[in-house]
Amino acid sequence: MPFEALNVGLIGAGRIGRVHAHNLTHFIPTADIGCVADERLGAAEECARENRIERAVADYRAVLDDPTVDAVMICSSTHTHARIIEEAAQAGKHIFCEKPIALSLPAIDAALAAVDRAGVKLQIGFNRRFDPNFSRVRDAIVGGEVGQPHLLHIISRDPSPPPIAYVKVSGGIFLDMTIHDFDMARFLIGAEVEEVYTAGGVMVDPAIGAAGDLDTALVVLKFANGVVGTIDNSRQATYGYDQRVEVFGSGGAIRTDNDYPNNALLSDAHSVRRDLPLHFFMERYTASFVNEINAFVDAIVNDRPAPVTGVDGRAPVVMGLAARRSYDEGRPVRLAEVEAQPTPRG
Amino acid sequence: MPFEALNVGLIGAGRIGRVHAHNLTHFIPTADIGCVADERLGAAEECARENRIERAVADYRAVLDDPTVDAVMICSSTHTHARIIEEAAQAGKHIFCEKPIALSLPAIDAALAAVDRAGVKLQIGFNRRFDPNFSRVRDAIVGGEVGQPHLLHIISRDPSPPPIAYVKVSGGIFLDMTIHDFDMARFLIGAEVEEVYTAGGVMVDPAIGAAGDLDTALVVLKFANGVVGTIDNSRQATYGYDQRVEVFGSGGAIRTDNDYPNNALLSDAHSVRRDLPLHFFMERYTASFVNEINAFVDAIVNDRPAPVTGVDGRAPVVMGLAARRSYDEGRPVRLAEVEAQPTPRG
Amino acid sequence: MPFEALNVGLIGAGRIGRVHAHNLTHFIPTADIGCVADERLGAAEECARENRIERAVADYRAVLDDPTVDAVMICSSTHTHARIIEEAAQAGKHIFCEKPIALSLPAIDAALAAVDRAGVKLQIGFNRRFDPNFSRVRDAIVGGEVGQPHLLHIISRDPSPPPIAYVKVSGGIFLDMTIHDFDMARFLIGAEVEEVYTAGGVMVDPAIGAAGDLDTALVVLKFANGVVGTIDNSRQATYGYDQRVEVFGSGGAIRTDNDYPNNALLSDAHSVRRDLPLHFFMERYTASFVNEINAFVDAIVNDRPAPVTGVDGRAPVVMGLAARRSYDEGRPVRLAEVEAQPTPRG
Amino acid sequence: MPFEALNVGLIGAGRIGRVHAHNLTHFIPTADIGCVADERLGAAEECARENRIERAVADYRAVLDDPTVDAVMICSSTHTHARIIEEAAQAGKHIFCEKPIALSLPAIDAALAAVDRAGVKLQIGFNRRFDPNFSRVRDAIVGGEVGQPHLLHIISRDPSPPPIAYVKVSGGIFLDMTIHDFDMARFLIGAEVEEVYTAGGVMVDPAIGAAGDLDTALVVLKFANGVVGTIDNSRQATYGYDQRVEVFGSGGAIRTDNDYPNNALLSDAHSVRRDLPLHFFMERYTASFVNEINAFVDAIVNDRPAPVTGVDGRAPVVMGLAARRSYDEGRPVRLAEVEAQPTPRG
Repeated sequence: MPFEALNVGLIGAGRIGRVHAHNLTHFIPTADIGCVADERLGAAEECARENRIERAVADYRAVLDDPTVDAVMICSSTHTHARIIEEAAQAGKHIFCEKPIALSLPAIDAALAAVDRAGVKLQIGFNRRFDPNFSRVRDAIVGGEVGQPHLLHIISRDPSPPPIAYVKVSGGIFLDMTIHDFDMARFLIGAEVEEVYTAGGVMVDPAIGAAGDLDTALVVLKFANGVVGTIDNSRQATYGYDQRVEVFGSGGAIRTDNDYPNNALLSDAHSVRRDLPLHFFMERYTASFVNEINAFVDAIVNDRPAPVTGVDGRAPVVMGLAARRSYDEGRPVRLAEVEAQPTPRG
Repeated sequence: MPFEALNVGLIGAGRIGRVHAHNLTHFIPTADIGCVADERLGAAEECARENRIERAVADYRAVLDDPTVDAVMICSSTHTHARIIEEAAQAGKHIFCEKPIALSLPAIDAALAAVDRAGVKLQIGFNRRFDPNFSRVRDAIVGGEVGQPHLLHIISRDPSPPPIAYVKVSGGIFLDMTIHDFDMARFLIGAEVEEVYTAGGVMVDPAIGAAGDLDTALVVLKFANGVVGTIDNSRQATYGYDQRVEVFGSGGAIRTDNDYPNNALLSDAHSVRRDLPLHFFMERYTASFVNEINAFVDAIVNDRPAPVTGVDGRAPVVMGLAARRSYDEGRPVRLAEVEAQPTPRG
Repeated sequence: MPFEALNVGLIGAGRIGRVHAHNLTHFIPTADIGCVADERLGAAEECARENRIERAVADYRAVLDDPTVDAVMICSSTHTHARIIEEAAQAGKHIFCEKPIALSLPAIDAALAAVDRAGVKLQIGFNRRFDPNFSRVRDAIVGGEVGQPHLLHIISRDPSPPPIAYVKVSGGIFLDMTIHDFDMARFLIGAEVEEVYTAGGVMVDPAIGAAGDLDTALVVLKFANGVVGTIDNSRQATYGYDQRVEVFGSGGAIRTDNDYPNNALLSDAHSVRRDLPLHFFMERYTASFVNEINAFVDAIVNDRPAPVTGVDGRAPVVMGLAARRSYDEGRPVRLAEVEAQPTPRG
Repeated sequence: MPFEALNVGLIGAGRIGRVHAHNLTHFIPTADIGCVADERLGAAEECARENRIERAVADYRAVLDDPTVDAVMICSSTHTHARIIEEAAQAGKHIFCEKPIALSLPAIDAALAAVDRAGVKLQIGFNRRFDPNFSRVRDAIVGGEVGQPHLLHIISRDPSPPPIAYVKVSGGIFLDMTIHDFDMARFLIGAEVEEVYTAGGVMVDPAIGAAGDLDTALVVLKFANGVVGTIDNSRQATYGYDQRVEVFGSGGAIRTDNDYPNNALLSDAHSVRRDLPLHFFMERYTASFVNEINAFVDAIVNDRPAPVTGVDGRAPVVMGLAARRSYDEGRPVRLAEVEAQPTPRG
């Protein structure tokens, strides 16, 4: 092993950055965080204190300039991802970057080109691939347990919508929320999507519509290998986070249910019932966040391919742009159209 | 009650006709079958013998001419439905007719006009409305248990495809198989569908494709009240008959599972498992067939509206024609288009 | 087949008698009821009318004297069972008798001796053996799916206690309610019980205790083949009828759940839940009542052994007497003790 | 808070000791391990290295002599527990001790007396109380969700028996395995057990019988408040670790299922199935081990009562001794008997 322990620089000490900091510190014996950066220096310092990180800085460039840093984790605001990827690649650092790389294809392509030139590893933070339920489904498909896949369904509903202020800068539901499901679709089926068709609307909160976005969406996916799939999104499920998939194939079907805080079943004079599912992604996807960082560190330390590549980061953005165009124009949209003529938003 | 016992004439003694004959004889104390007709006289006679029906004839007109017959059940071949409806209506008989009324809108419209003129009751055999699982979902929606519906999913997969000879005369998957799901969609949501979009293909058997049909379909439904839904159809699920629905709304969600021959759960060194679901519609929908005939008899005897009307029989045919056009042309199709210009097939 | 259709005489037109009458009339094509007797002649006549039975009488001896009657079903009060069995056997009729044969071993033994002398068939009404869930468990054991059985658990709870007047004449919880579970235990394990130990008490209603009975019981069973089992009884489960079993063995385990009126699962802001189980035995064991009569008719018509014999009717009474003695004396009681010295109650 | 961070000394660096070391180091910010002792010094050193513990020693007395140590965790062999508790109490250390305190009541009583004299806190390692499923059941009982408890069932089966060498020194199934279930019974019902009755035998491996032990046990518990319960134990469940409880009461019932590595449900031509449950206690009770240490640290730091006391550690040993006596003598045994005359084994 060429590394005693991988030295990771953390860029961004917000919610997800601190989750990664905790996991790296406590569960990944082969890596240490040597430095944490956040433009809000106080946040960086608090994160450093919590995780016994030696150095906290405001400017991420200090992380990139540190020759002892082997790899960076980019957990800053979305609009900074592409630029920092480019700079980190130029600095020769391996890169883990939260999704999405960017909301614009030229920005993504520039970032990926820089990574290619530098020959560093890049992993995108599609953590759900590392969830035990979904990885079991992927294993079933790869292992032939359901035969040749025919149909795919993804249900992905949030417990409640984000603040309107966030909705306005989020890139819209398809690039903010569905993007995880686009990745899940590609991951499970192992093929590219060629065409999408979107139905949906504003059913949860008119303010989301006023902000130019949808809150309820149904996206049909046509894959290159003939599989047809759907994604069902809502910004508000009263019963909490609803995250399920089903794959049907020539040999059978596999489906997952939600995860719950306990499995107790209560029967009384009214009903037979259980408690609500784990409320949101921090509870539901706890294990996946550890697993993805483990995979990232392993890819570097053992020089294996990153399990979620730059291409995997780009494709869902194309799908998101196509899904929005389909919704706006009320027709199926081929991804090739978006490649030929990205939207201004993109 | 104006009837001592309703005198029903059965037209068609094939598989479904005999199911109805058995149910009427054994479970519906307020009705009797006085006569059964089948162009294969032997079939009529066997049905009569099994159910202690006094009279068996080859020509259904003998049933219509019998002044003691109050109502007829039309269980003959699809291509005869519309004509017999017209004749039965002219004869002043109340009518139960298996789905579909016809594969052509003009034929349907002529039949419904005859029913209207005669003032008789007409009920269409969409038995799944009377299944305890689906009627529980409908009750939840009507009772506000899931709030305002937003999204609907129907899974409807057969255990194995019908013979190719049947496929060729079936009217295609949308009018033969999906038609039940189109009805279920309207029944559950309680609103009309305005537009459909179809994806799918030939994934099970190329011979089905060679016959001009699909075997795997995904239909998106846009309802007039804004609800968006999907129907998932396959002609072949290795694990048997797969019949489930899910409705998601502002207040929550409700979903059904399959029915099973038993609920035993076996754990051994390999897995935790149960037996396969009830294999096909005769096993799965047993109760629904009794319930629908009960409702038909009740509608006549107590002069209530039929619970599944001629309009309910017509709408799914329009949806089926639109779904096929959508598949052929690769675009969403509004039902109004089909009304304006029915396909030649129709 | 020596019988065109088996001619059955029904003795007792109370609740369970009428269930059998309906099932025989509508589901068993190989048998007819030629006569029904009930000391309340009106009840017999109403039953006859409902099921098109030609003859209704007050005195069951008229049934026994009818030479056209092949078999009788004894559904009268418990205290008449043993005597009518003897008389029916002497009259050469095959016999189906509701449980228990009697509450006293000498009475049972006299009845069984009469059956033996007459060489007629006798089947006892332990309908639960014919329930699809429990028969699936039995199949698993016979088929070796759980290996050699080690442990057995039976949960059997009623939705609410019977009237105190009934409790007083019922023979007590062990002979009235647990008797079904004693039979289930022998049926599933396929071996005899040698010793029982009972714990329990009066937890539901002090009036049951005042009547000399328990309402909550836990019975431990030691089988001759080494299996150890438990029976859990309560006279009152707020959520309805609770009927489950579990068998654990060297190769695995199998367990059953309750049956439900539908399988819809509702998620809202409070819980994920389903409707209560089927409320009581008429709903839960509907299929088993048809199946057991089918088996009885089949045993006679095809001259096969009755599937639930006189010995099967006697053994649970011994177990019930032993269970009560164990409870009274606070110690394990071997069944051989009861055989040697039946209680006065017995 | 009187402690900056609680300084914990770990005694015993075997399997469970290392689990606690990891959890204390990574999940309990309010505590640090300052020293680890194991008579196998290498084990102590390895544990220290893994968890960045400053000091590793062979003799636990060095931990007790360290004035900076606030509390100790006793994870050494069972036969050392009572003695180290006494010494730690004399040294003024708060104490967490793995179960059982000892296999003999006089030894336990001496240890508890020392704790009382010293006024330190003592918590026993019954981690299952802190499992989310079982704590949910306890909450339901405390919160009145099932009314007044009547019946309790605990299923507790291991995936495979321990080595015979271990069986011989384990104290027997009741003190080694059932002891957890005895504690669970007291925890859930919140009352003391007064009498036990044991059935069971050697069904898994004759060598266990040859070692004087059982491998399959059924224990009936009579609680002081009238509740009746059962514990079902097997040393070998082919499908893995089987850990479930059910409590039935006047208002309803609550039951738990096993935990699984994922919730994917696979349907194919053979069955509808899922993967086996989490295999053994390290996987199944992961969270409970963290939770119990959290509770221990919290009890000291915030001067609250320990949630599992010395009395809680003693009672299951009495129950285990009584259960064995009941098995040996084939009769119910009151716990008062054991108190009056402990077995030589005890």
